Formats: sequence, structure tokens, C-alpha cells
Amino acid sequence: MSKPSPTTTVNVTRVAGNQRETATDVVAGEEPMEIRLSIPQEDGAFTRSLSVTMRTPGDDFELAAGFLFTEGIVAGPRDIERIDYTSEGKRDQEGNVVTVSLRRGVQLDPQRLLRHFYVTSSCGVCGKTSLDAVRVVVPHKLHRGAPKISPATVNGLPDALRKEQNLFARTGGLHGAGLFTPKGKLLGLREDVGRHNAVDKLVGEQFLKGNVPLSGSVLQVSGRGGFEIVQKAIVAGIPILSAVGAPSSLAVDLAREFDMTLFGFVREGRFNVYSDSERLTTN
Amino acid sequence: MSKPSPTTTVNVTRVAGNQRETATDVVAGEEPMEIRLSIPQEDGAFTRSLSVTMRTPGDDFELAAGFLFTEGIVAGPRDIERIDYTSEGKRDQEGNVVTVSLRRGVQLDPQRLLRHFYVTSSCGVCGKTSLDAVRVVVPHKLHRGAPKISPATVNGLPDALRKEQNLFARTGGLHGAGLFTPKGKLLGLREDVGRHNAVDKLVGEQFLKGNVPLSGSVLQVSGRGGFEIVQKAIVAGIPILSAVGAPSSLAVDLAREFDMTLFGFVREGRFNVYSDSERLTTN
Repeated sequence: MSKPSPTTTVNVTRVAGNQRETATDVVAGEEPMEIRLSIPQEDGAFTRSLSVTMRTPGDDFELAAGFLFTEGIVAGPRDIERIDYTSEGKRDQEGNVVTVSLRRGVQLDPQRLLRHFYVTSSCGVCGKTSLDAVRVVVPHKLHRGAPKISPATVNGLPDALRKEQNLFARTGGLHGAGLFTPKGKLLGLREDVGRHNAVDKLVGEQFLKGNVPLSGSVLQVSGRGGFEIVQKAIVAGIPILSAVGAPSSLAVDLAREFDMTLFGFVREGRFNVYSDSERLTTN
Repeated sequence: MSKPSPTTTVNVTRVAGNQRETATDVVAGEEPMEIRLSIPQEDGAFTRSLSVTMRTPGDDFELAAGFLFTEGIVAGPRDIERIDYTSEGKRDQEGNVVTVSLRRGVQLDPQRLLRHFYVTSSCGVCGKTSLDAVRVVVPHKLHRGAPKISPATVNGLPDALRKEQNLFARTGGLHGAGLFTPKGKLLGLREDVGRHNAVDKLVGEQFLKGNVPLSGSVLQVSGRGGFEIVQKAIVAGIPILSAVGAPSSLAVDLAREFDMTLFGFVREGRFNVYSDSERLTTN
């Protein structure tokens, strides 16, 4: 077991027909990361474990900040006093426990927090309550009609993303999330074994820089457009989400409800528009 | 919002170059599902919420059983008295809450259960403790050298899986998990928006039929081979895992530790062997 690393080299046998050769292969790192929240109290601070996610090591502070933001626990970078690795002397946990210390006076909504401490059953489990949960965090819809994006730009996003995915190029398999201007200029890119983590890292970086809401930008993801990806983009104020893969039913419902533009199956010069809100130009 | 359904039809605009047409598109259903565990007590039963997962509706009881089994909470079908939908009259939750009632006298390991009720921080977060957690559930390694599989059979698995993925064919994007004999005969197939759910549904069906451990079979997945997929396969006793996509570092570690055979990048007549354990024949 090595220290957390974005990639690891392993010995493999490559098989092609009856040919075999021993080779080395670079695989994406995957390690659990725990996110803890430290809440200042009258006398010291109260620390709670919030989440454990399997992630590709790297950009861990951005991942923690992005998770807290897109899940509605913090609203702005000023809510955070500091972020640290806190392995408490346990060497094998080094770099896998991240504690986010809130600034004194930050108001936490116990309902939102509770959602992560316990599996909530009282509030019900259905598509409707999932939409309700997003409504709590984002009380308003996105602004219709802006920004505008052309079909040609949409068609170019997946290649622009893939071309810059350094870890994908080395490992051959890693989810990517890219932030673009409506003209197709890449603003940021993150990769992870987990689709949600790639989005949280990307949004977390912008959040920590004070750039949210990202109301003038476009999110391109390498995989499917599921409910939670749409949720995270809406919380971040991103009005346009473009997915190489398919959307899900609930993702379409959520995008339409919040006036987000959702593109799916963006490949080979074609795509589907699942929710428009007047942002796609005619050419 | 409609009732839980494996697929939903939505209106879309198809864009290709400057051509646009209105069309209907079938998208994969995605709805939250809550798994509850009902534990018999002296006086009545004690019910706790165990997990909420976003899943494609369908095979929900298999999903619940497979989750409980691959996470090490139940050991055999006799541990389960019955499985029911329990929406308690809340119509919008109908079909999204599944309660698994344990048989009286089943011994539950509080440590394993606790893992799902609270995020555990005391036991540490690192690759090593992740491997330790699997060791608790599976005290023994898989049997080396059996079953045997040929390279030609491995190369044929992804197409055999894809050809039978009915929901994928309709929606264009859904994870698939297929159980095969070492000769490449399909034994079972499940699809879901979540990679783990597809495996849990597939394993859960076999579990409920009394077919576990699945020590003579091969699991083919449509996506990546991550840690949790390897974990679930090992708990189910599946000795060979084949992934169309890339494995992760921790997945390779886990497969090697338990003597599982792990194939990755199985595509276009080639694949990589990340962990062998003497199961791949020379031709």
C-alpha cells in the first residue's frame, strides 16, 4: 500500500489473440477520503464526520469545499475558516482525512446537515422529495435565455475536454468534468474515478476562488448526466450542462424545473436537447 | 412525476449540424430507493433505514437483497424472512421504500451494521482499512486455478453483454452487469443507472435463489472495475471479474489479495490481466 497518489503503476499481462507480453500499466488512484466538518463552539470546536467517498487522490481540499457547497452546507468561501489534512498521527491515514473548519458565526441549517449524518426516512423517498431537497438549497431558477451557446460549440466540447484529460490519457479511464465559456474556452478541468467527485473538485476550485455562482459558464462531463450531476451544477449556478452520455429521467425533470439547459449524447456532431430554456442559438 | 418505471419517454430536440427535429427519446428511469432493515425483537420488530440509493426502478427486491449480502449484513437467503414495499400509505413513495425483514434468530454483526448507519471515523480511512473491511466479511481467499477461462471467451464477453442489454438498447446509456459461465454462456443480466446497483441486482437474484457463492462464474461489467465492484464480486465468491473499462489502484490491490482474476480494457480483441491466479488458459 502506497501513499495517496493520483496514479499508480502496476505490472500487467497484455493479451492480444495468442500474443502475451508483460508490461506496466498506469492505473488511476482510488482511496477513501473522509470529509469532516469542524464547527466553532463557545468552548473550542465540535468536529463531525460528514462523508466518506472513494476518490482519486489530488485536489482534496477543492473536493471537500465543492462537496460542502454543492450539497448546500456552505454558501460562500467566507464560511470556511480553513481546510487541513487531519490524520492525527495515524500514518496510514495521512492525506485521506480532510477537515473543513467553519468560520465562527456561520449559520448552519441543521436539516441540510442532518441529511448527511443520518439516512433520512421521515421526509420520504421519491423523485418529488429529491427535487424538493434541491429547492431548499436553490430557492430560485436559473436566468432563462443567457448565456447563449451555438450547436458548433456544443459539438466541440467533448473533444476539448478529452484532449486536456491528462490522467485519462495516462490511465485510459477516468471521469472528467470541464468548465467552459459559452464560446468553448476551457476554464478548468478535473478528473476522478467518481463522476460526482470530478464535478465537486471543479466547482470547489471555483468556489474557493470566489467565482460562484458560475452563471456565465458551461459544464461538460465525460459520462452520463444523472440527477446528482444536474443538482450540483444548479447549486453552482451553472446554466448549461452537456453530457457525452445519456441523461436520466429525474435529471431531465430537475433541469426543466430549474430552467437549466441539458444536452445529452453529445457525440459525432450530434446531440439531443432535453431542456432548452432558450440558450441554444440557431447556428 | 410518474410512478417508478425503468424507462420514461421525453420530448427532445435532435440537433445535427443545422438540422433540428423534434423527437421523443427514451431515458433510463432514476428514482431514489430506501432500503430498510426490520430486525425481530422480543416484542415486535425494530426497523431502521439502512441506505438510500439512486437506482433505475425494477428488480428492487433483488437490489435490496444483493446490497445486504455484498455489504456483509446477511450471509444467506435463509436470513431473510420476507421483502416488501412499505410506503405506509404515502402514495408518492410507493415502490421506492423496500423493507427487508430478517428471520428471528439471525445474528447481526453490529460492526457491519454500524458501518451503514454512521460514517465511521474511529476505524480510520485509508486503502488498508478498506481492504480490512472486506477481510471481515470474506475471511478466506478465492480458490486459485479454478475455473479456467480462455482469452477468446474473455474477448467475447462485452459483446455478449451489450447484445442482451435491452434497456441500454432503448436508452443508449445504462450500466450493465452480466453473469457468465467460464465458457461464455450468459446466466443473468441486470442494468441500472448506478454501476453498483447493476451488480447488486444481479448478485441479489442469485442470492435469493440460493446460488451463492457463485464460485464457478464470471462477472462482466460494462464500465470500470473499481474497488466496490471488486468487493461485491469477492463477497459473492465470483472468481473472475472482467471490465470493459479501467481498474483502479485499490481494485487491483484487492483482487490480488483475494486471488481474484481481474481483466480490464476488454475491447477490440485485447485485454489486460491485472491479477491472474492461474485462471487464464493459454489459448
